[in-house]
Amino acid sequence: MIDFLNRLKFNEQGLIAAIAQDYKTNEILMQAWMNEESLNLSIKSGFATYFSRSRGKIWKKGETSKNIQEIIEISTDCDYDCILLQVKQTGPACHTGKRSCFFNRII
Amino acid sequence: MIDFLNRLKFNEQGLIAAIAQDYKTNEILMQAWMNEESLNLSIKSGFATYFSRSRGKIWKKGETSKNIQEIIEISTDCDYDCILLQVKQTGPACHTGKRSCFFNRII
Repeated sequence: MIDFLNRLKFNEQGLIAAIAQDYKTNEILMQAWMNEESLNLSIKSGFATYFSRSRGKIWKKGETSKNIQEIIEISTDCDYDCILLQVKQTGPACHTGKRSCFFNRII
Repeated sequence: MIDFLNRLKFNEQGLIAAIAQDYKTNEILMQAWMNEESLNLSIKSGFATYFSRSRGKIWKKGETSKNIQEIIEISTDCDYDCILLQVKQTGPACHTGKRSCFFNRII
């Protein structure tokens, strides 16, 4: 198996975009960011762990809300600059209480 | 209807992450970037138009390959820093010929 981990392209801030998707319905739950450490923690623990740009620190999704994301699968795209997490979401993914963060329709 | 367009948060480079998802299957097809102009062009034309960071210019998806993305719906997330496009994809979304760009499994 090719080691895609070593191919990942983190940006100037050391971050990579991560999309969390419901592993059963394919619903997109949220988009957040990871640094190398949070990705390694995600892989090691089996639970989605991101890097908060506003707080400047690593956060395990659900550490406060208990709405954790169990990781089923992690993929990257053809140019290695985005990560896709297939997750089993406990409770709502969004801090507003909605299932998904993408509830604002533009058109 | 709230004008979410005016709430969007473009980053320091004037870009916002955009996820393209198959409007029927919910499959995630690709992740790319938009600037304000490419977003306006997407809305006006009805076809996904992105901003290429590597080429430093706007590109209509499929302008060369003909694998265009007809926009069914555009949403943004709870903090307005990511865009989700529900699209009707013609042909494969990925330049490799695969349906989706997310074909590299990490775990």
